[in-house]
Amino acid sequence: MDPSKADKVPVLKDLTADNITENVIRINSQCDDARLKYILERLITHLHDFARETRLSSQEWQAGIGFLTDTGKICSDVRQVFLFSTLCSPIEFALQRQHEVDKPETSLISLQEFVLLSDVLGLSILVDSIDHPKPPDSTEGTVLGPFHADAPEISHGDVISFDPNGEPMLVLCTLKDTSGRPIEGAKIDIWETDTTGHYDVQYSDRGVPDGRCVVHSDGDGIFWFKAIKPVPYPVPCDGPVGRLLEKIHRHPFRPSHVHFMFEKEGYDHLITSLFIRDDPYETSDAVFGVKNTLVVDLAKVDSDQSAKYGINQGSWLMTYDFVLVSDAESSALRDRNSKDALDRLGYKVKIVNGLPVPDLD
Amino acid sequence: MDPSKADKVPVLKDLTADNITENVIRINSQCDDARLKYILERLITHLHDFARETRLSSQEWQAGIGFLTDTGKICSDVRQVFLFSTLCSPIEFALQRQHEVDKPETSLISLQEFVLLSDVLGLSILVDSIDHPKPPDSTEGTVLGPFHADAPEISHGDVISFDPNGEPMLVLCTLKDTSGRPIEGAKIDIWETDTTGHYDVQYSDRGVPDGRCVVHSDGDGIFWFKAIKPVPYPVPCDGPVGRLLEKIHRHPFRPSHVHFMFEKEGYDHLITSLFIRDDPYETSDAVFGVKNTLVVDLAKVDSDQSAKYGINQGSWLMTYDFVLVSDAESSALRDRNSKDALDRLGYKVKIVNGLPVPDLD
Repeated sequence: MDPSKADKVPVLKDLTADNITENVIRINSQCDDARLKYILERLITHLHDFARETRLSSQEWQAGIGFLTDTGKICSDVRQVFLFSTLCSPIEFALQRQHEVDKPETSLISLQEFVLLSDVLGLSILVDSIDHPKPPDSTEGTVLGPFHADAPEISHGDVISFDPNGEPMLVLCTLKDTSGRPIEGAKIDIWETDTTGHYDVQYSDRGVPDGRCVVHSDGDGIFWFKAIKPVPYPVPCDGPVGRLLEKIHRHPFRPSHVHFMFEKEGYDHLITSLFIRDDPYETSDAVFGVKNTLVVDLAKVDSDQSAKYGINQGSWLMTYDFVLVSDAESSALRDRNSKDALDRLGYKVKIVNGLPVPDLD
Repeated sequence: MDPSKADKVPVLKDLTADNITENVIRINSQCDDARLKYILERLITHLHDFARETRLSSQEWQAGIGFLTDTGKICSDVRQVFLFSTLCSPIEFALQRQHEVDKPETSLISLQEFVLLSDVLGLSILVDSIDHPKPPDSTEGTVLGPFHADAPEISHGDVISFDPNGEPMLVLCTLKDTSGRPIEGAKIDIWETDTTGHYDVQYSDRGVPDGRCVVHSDGDGIFWFKAIKPVPYPVPCDGPVGRLLEKIHRHPFRPSHVHFMFEKEGYDHLITSLFIRDDPYETSDAVFGVKNTLVVDLAKVDSDQSAKYGINQGSWLMTYDFVLVSDAESSALRDRNSKDALDRLGYKVKIVNGLPVPDLD
């Protein structure tokens, strides 16, 4: 990066619904095309205001992503089709179309590009912060990203990452409610990349899950497994989003992290990640996901732990105590936040199930 | 439509950058889902404000449509891919993917769904009105739609529509500049549907162009051809946009029209249509494209015209005098409009090539 621009680059950490917009605009303003800069500034402002004014829920935005994806998928270039259909026999035409479809196979199977777009525009983290507000002392949420996938159930202590180049890491966690009581039987999805920075689903030739699992917390709220130390990696850059980031001089890296997703009846769904302290991208995550409370210091496994958990002494050790918020608590907080925000904006709406609708009374 | 809602349905004609937003919101408010209604109201407001504040150009929005389409096309569901790859051999997996790709073929080849989405949200007509402002006494523009395609050059008087069920229509036009001088040698694209309301490119098995042509104006600015009387038709409803319209109780019809597109060096590109008066959808075009100056009364071919133009007496007759604006005139008007609009909005920008950029001086 040009050192003269260093003062323009904000510290992208602990972003909230109130400060995300100005920070995304500032990081985008490294772009040296004045017109594009202006368009992006207005786009981000309106996109974020739309989410804030509607209190857009995660489920609604997921439906929106689905709508946009379906819309893209059904598109075809009538000009091209028309030329083919006039120049070729139906069979040649079908083969030609087939060839076009096959060509990008390798890059096709790896991602949900609209999720990625939403991530790099700061919309994903904004929607998460609106829809899953967290009281103090509970675990904060962050972006889901496009790489969650179904995974096999493991037993506590199992190895989930098989990359031979990975540095083994023991992960010891607890799960509690906001009163400090252990939560038993929560379903926990965990996923991380291999040492090349790729998730298993990004490989078209990989047949078995790697770097991901599902585990359930035990009666003491404990869950544990053996993974590898995560590495920083670039978000996929082979598509339109990668080209956009390059054009506006934004790096595509995410700091080293492991994803965690918690589901348990009666508790607000928690999608989060743990980040490794002092990662070179800790304050410039391409998708704005880092929060101070989610940054951890790794330790080393000592001899007692080595014996107890069956992993070499000196391996990396990650520990964390997760805290889930109850549905009731979360929903009350969401309602209060929505009401306050919309009162401040002067909108004539009422809050129904945490979401505003026109108030016609 | 529920008669009690009739007063909520605005007359959707002659919409401008200043009144399009309230009218699109009103037509969308037939939706009986209060939450969706609120989301659509905020979405339309922000989308239109974005276009107005950036003075978004047609070319830029075309690039935006391309970006969104590429983004949709590269998407895939990692969950699905992952399951296939674990359950099937690579060949079964490839066949399975192939099957999914083949299935929707028939509907796939007919449209650019993002253009359609932009059309039904009122964004296309808004961008056209910003980017191609028209002084009084010149021909107004309207939406391009997703069905323009390359077409063969014809000679004056040729038949362009071969539907045997069509009612023959002679089309006699002139093309002049704003001083009344004929414009010679302009390239004119013309396209219309068959009597079932489908464009040729919507048929996967049709090999030759039908209902479309390219013609050039002669030394007197004249161009003429033989077509069929256009019919109203629904925009394609088999995709996400059709489902959206249904959900919010909006009909998908466009009133009967013929598309015209004019290109001539030194003149502003004109994309327009002629509409037939008293069409049942004249005041409720699904894509907001009707303007009073573009609505024509059809006449009947008399015996002199029948002999002169080689078409049966009593056939339909459409006549129109198109007026193109020079590039210089158009660009001066665009600059003035942009400056006025942004001054009113209080934005700190300057206008460069008709488009605002941040004013850092």
